Amino acid sequence: MDIATLIGLVGGFGLIVTTVLMGGNAGGFVDPPSLVVVVGGTLAATFVMFPLKTVIGTAKVAMKTILFKSQDPQDMIRLITSLADTARKESLVALEKVNIDDAYLKKGVMLVVDGSSESLVRSVMEIELDFMKQRHRAGQGVFKGMGTMAPAFGMIGTLIGLVNMLQNLSDPSSIGPAMAVALLTTFYGAVLANVVFLPLATKLEQRSEEDALFMQIMIEGVASLQKGDHPTVVKEKLQAFLSPALREES
Amino acid sequence: MDIATLIGLVGGFGLIVTTVLMGGNAGGFVDPPSLVVVVGGTLAATFVMFPLKTVIGTAKVAMKTILFKSQDPQDMIRLITSLADTARKESLVALEKVNIDDAYLKKGVMLVVDGSSESLVRSVMEIELDFMKQRHRAGQGVFKGMGTMAPAFGMIGTLIGLVNMLQNLSDPSSIGPAMAVALLTTFYGAVLANVVFLPLATKLEQRSEEDALFMQIMIEGVASLQKGDHPTVVKEKLQAFLSPALREES
Amino acid sequence: MDIATLIGLVGGFGLIVTTVLMGGNAGGFVDPPSLVVVVGGTLAATFVMFPLKTVIGTAKVAMKTILFKSQDPQDMIRLITSLADTARKESLVALEKVNIDDAYLKKGVMLVVDGSSESLVRSVMEIELDFMKQRHRAGQGVFKGMGTMAPAFGMIGTLIGLVNMLQNLSDPSSIGPAMAVALLTTFYGAVLANVVFLPLATKLEQRSEEDALFMQIMIEGVASLQKGDHPTVVKEKLQAFLSPALREES
Amino acid sequence: MDIATLIGLVGGFGLIVTTVLMGGNAGGFVDPPSLVVVVGGTLAATFVMFPLKTVIGTAKVAMKTILFKSQDPQDMIRLITSLADTARKESLVALEKVNIDDAYLKKGVMLVVDGSSESLVRSVMEIELDFMKQRHRAGQGVFKGMGTMAPAFGMIGTLIGLVNMLQNLSDPSSIGPAMAVALLTTFYGAVLANVVFLPLATKLEQRSEEDALFMQIMIEGVASLQKGDHPTVVKEKLQAFLSPALREES
Amino acid sequence: MDIATLIGLVGGFGLIVTTVLMGGNAGGFVDPPSLVVVVGGTLAATFVMFPLKTVIGTAKVAMKTILFKSQDPQDMIRLITSLADTARKESLVALEKVNIDDAYLKKGVMLVVDGSSESLVRSVMEIELDFMKQRHRAGQGVFKGMGTMAPAFGMIGTLIGLVNMLQNLSDPSSIGPAMAVALLTTFYGAVLANVVFLPLATKLEQRSEEDALFMQIMIEGVASLQKGDHPTVVKEKLQAFLSPALREES
Repeated sequence: MDIATLIGLVGGFGLIVTTVLMGGNAGGFVDPPSLVVVVGGTLAATFVMFPLKTVIGTAKVAMKTILFKSQDPQDMIRLITSLADTARKESLVALEKVNIDDAYLKKGVMLVVDGSSESLVRSVMEIELDFMKQRHRAGQGVFKGMGTMAPAFGMIGTLIGLVNMLQNLSDPSSIGPAMAVALLTTFYGAVLANVVFLPLATKLEQRSEEDALFMQIMIEGVASLQKGDHPTVVKEKLQAFLSPALREES
Repeated sequence: MDIATLIGLVGGFGLIVTTVLMGGNAGGFVDPPSLVVVVGGTLAATFVMFPLKTVIGTAKVAMKTILFKSQDPQDMIRLITSLADTARKESLVALEKVNIDDAYLKKGVMLVVDGSSESLVRSVMEIELDFMKQRHRAGQGVFKGMGTMAPAFGMIGTLIGLVNMLQNLSDPSSIGPAMAVALLTTFYGAVLANVVFLPLATKLEQRSEEDALFMQIMIEGVASLQKGDHPTVVKEKLQAFLSPALREES
Repeated sequence: MDIATLIGLVGGFGLIVTTVLMGGNAGGFVDPPSLVVVVGGTLAATFVMFPLKTVIGTAKVAMKTILFKSQDPQDMIRLITSLADTARKESLVALEKVNIDDAYLKKGVMLVVDGSSESLVRSVMEIELDFMKQRHRAGQGVFKGMGTMAPAFGMIGTLIGLVNMLQNLSDPSSIGPAMAVALLTTFYGAVLANVVFLPLATKLEQRSEEDALFMQIMIEGVASLQKGDHPTVVKEKLQAFLSPALREES
Repeated sequence: MDIATLIGLVGGFGLIVTTVLMGGNAGGFVDPPSLVVVVGGTLAATFVMFPLKTVIGTAKVAMKTILFKSQDPQDMIRLITSLADTARKESLVALEKVNIDDAYLKKGVMLVVDGSSESLVRSVMEIELDFMKQRHRAGQGVFKGMGTMAPAFGMIGTLIGLVNMLQNLSDPSSIGPAMAVALLTTFYGAVLANVVFLPLATKLEQRSEEDALFMQIMIEGVASLQKGDHPTVVKEKLQAFLSPALREES
Repeated sequence: MDIATLIGLVGGFGLIVTTVLMGGNAGGFVDPPSLVVVVGGTLAATFVMFPLKTVIGTAKVAMKTILFKSQDPQDMIRLITSLADTARKESLVALEKVNIDDAYLKKGVMLVVDGSSESLVRSVMEIELDFMKQRHRAGQGVFKGMGTMAPAFGMIGTLIGLVNMLQNLSDPSSIGPAMAVALLTTFYGAVLANVVFLPLATKLEQRSEEDALFMQIMIEGVASLQKGDHPTVVKEKLQAFLSPALREES
């Protein structure tokens, strides 16, 4: 589980609630109609922006940023090195019987076992990498879109409040509270965008890059298998994808 | 029909109208001259920005975001796999008699049947893909341009209102309503941009990517036909364009 | 002539002037020193930003957005198809005697007639396409630069007015008009940027893309001529550059 | 050590503190809860945005911008030229015994000594260059993210303060100080973003480009070694990477 | 000398000073501590952002935007055509004795005379072009960075002034002047960014593109020399880099 996402979300909201409570006037920060206009408006704009299917899929994607389990790239490199070892000691065909959990790696290895050409294996694997990136970009797009729309609807709500207040200045004592309520939508929009939507979009981008790194290691690894590289060479090559601190001496 | 677009537009306007009505002063939000300056100014800037033909074509494009009917990529993959089957069992020439609805796929298949070289088929199909993207970008450009200009003319209208008000401060009781009216153009500009123009531009972008995905599946499919790939290989290859959840086992 | 540009400019200014006149205080919107600081400051920044030659050339470029005459791409495709016909029926050398108005197409055809290699013809034509785009980008750059600088100098003028006003608050009745004048530079900057400079920059971009499309059609057409493609194939290939609605059946 | 970073940080904070002290009211600028909401909120958002590992690694990266020691590219070119000299006078295998400090260069040279193909050597070295850039971009990303979030939480804090103040206008004498406190979070956010986070992100980008330049010199140098270029040619080639002022005549 | 830069800088400052003087209160615009916080803060941030060497080198670069002397590309084309003539009438080796002022062209010609391969000549020249662009981008980066930081420190200064003023509202007559002084840092920041830093960054970009155009002409020219193209063909090819208006008939 990605604890950082959870800590960040809880911490961010906690800080803001604490600050509000310290002002001794927490009730003044709760205004359901204001919340409806910001959240509802953001959702409405999201429906116009994205296909229904993409919007619904976003809930799942959001869970992923919390449940995502980082893998150790060294495990993957060790696995591919052991495959290279098997291929060398026995034969490429022997790989067919090895149990490979990762569906992507398995697909690549099966193509090699079937005797597909090098360029076919690479192109099938790269098409899948490209489309994985494209699907992730769509998910980030929804969160980025919501992060742009929340402050926009916050401002629209504040403008409605200001126009109402300005047309009703006869009672001076009501000006302050009316303006406070008008500002609440801007406040809600800023909190939603900066505590939730925009940070989640960035986290998804990070996860997408991590996935892409794994897939690139697998593509190079499968190409090495196919060329019949010695396991030591395979390991050496794949270490180049990691930062020097994470590398293992072969 | 793309119901999400309709739901979003109706929901967004509905929310804003409801919020205005709840303020008990709905009449104060209707000011025809303010509406004219924002809508008219945005249209005028759009005419300067884009060729007449493009501006007029935008109405059609806008309808498309509502009427667009999503296709199932599996249907397309099934169709191409069946073509590969026909080509294998009978011959490439037999494809000439198959009834293909999609004009783009048909064109590609006909080029293959005519015995054109692989690179010619691919280049003709890719040129069409590139220009489809370019035309869609033009459509998005108009909506993005309007989404930038609406708030700009909202601000220009507000500046005119503020200057008028500031030169006429003798009657204090008129300051509030005058300023309320001045703010209306900013309000109109923000609503038009964030409920209509910018979300529609994003939806068009999404639709363009969906179309491009279909065309890329067709390009790879036609290339597979030409190479005489076995139907199972064709299906396998084309599944790589889909997210794992949408794939079908062969 | 590009009527849309003219309609847009006249319409945009007309709307703003009408709105000002309706406020019954048109004189309050005319302040020559404010106009001088915004227009002069924008020009000064433009001189720092761009080489003298580019700045002077911009006037010509601006006229082009109004005088530009859209061509029909079908005319160009018909012309190239007829050239392919001549080349087929007579010979490539016969093209030398054909009268070709467009200097770019003529140059390409002459290179083919002279027996230059395919890659030379393509590279000479593509270099010219690239540099056409680069020159157009320079023109757009000047307008975009002015569109950024006009609001900036509007704000600088407003800051000067505010500082003057704030140091002189003894007479309350002068505060309103002083602030109104201070806001005028912001108003002028916003109008210049959003009615003139930024929309013209976009129109130039559109025109540049239209020119590039024509040149790409000519490049592919000349390549087809050189390969000796059948006129029907030439036409078929070039139709791919157009939107389906603009295509002609061959 | 990179003194400029230190001078800039100390100088920036020094100037701001001095300006505050000159106002004779330094105590009014210290408000722990405001500081907590800005710093804490920025950290919370950072945890949501980036994987835990990346966040923790950032402290190390920040130190690097201060401790970074610029190398002279001429030293590197001289080293590679001397390797070319050894390879020429003795043999490529003789390079195995040369003591090379830089791990990246060493790896490249060892691959050459082992008789790897030219394309393998280049691809291994370029993969490492690409991933070095990607890791550095991640580091810059954290600082850029914090530079965006600090002003956002500054604004959120100010909104909380304003809403509190507006709901409590009964005592006019408290309005000023309350608003001053509300503005403090905006002030803290602006200082953190513009004195620390955003400038450090730019410095990291500069360092990354400097590292990349060194690695590109090494890639070209190793390729030259492998081709057996004469030391003078090696030197000549590598000088092209430097600005004319930094070049040495051979 | 680039007179436009000088005219723009003098004109921009002149206009602003004149506008200030017309307000009859020029003394109110001079506040040394405000100037120190904006200029000093911008410099401090610049030191954090860029390596010491780059910051110091910027003064030289700034002079270049004023002293830059535009060359006529036709002169360069004429020179290369005459070299092609010499190579044709005498021999490639005869080029060794021709006196070539431009160090970049000379280097390319010498590589050709030495009998280097076509791809080597092109790659050495293109590496130098790429790194020229990269160095120029660094110079522009410093000015762009200063253009972002000047308004940021202007805002920080204004926030300090506002907080001081708000905590001291007891004497109403001091509010106006205090706020005027607070606004001065924003004013200084806006002037520095929009009259000096941002326009100079754009001018550097323009100069860099002009230099790149010359270098691209030289690369193509040297390649033509090496292929032994006829002088007329050389001239024809190189004219493609220029706008039609600047071309010379051969």
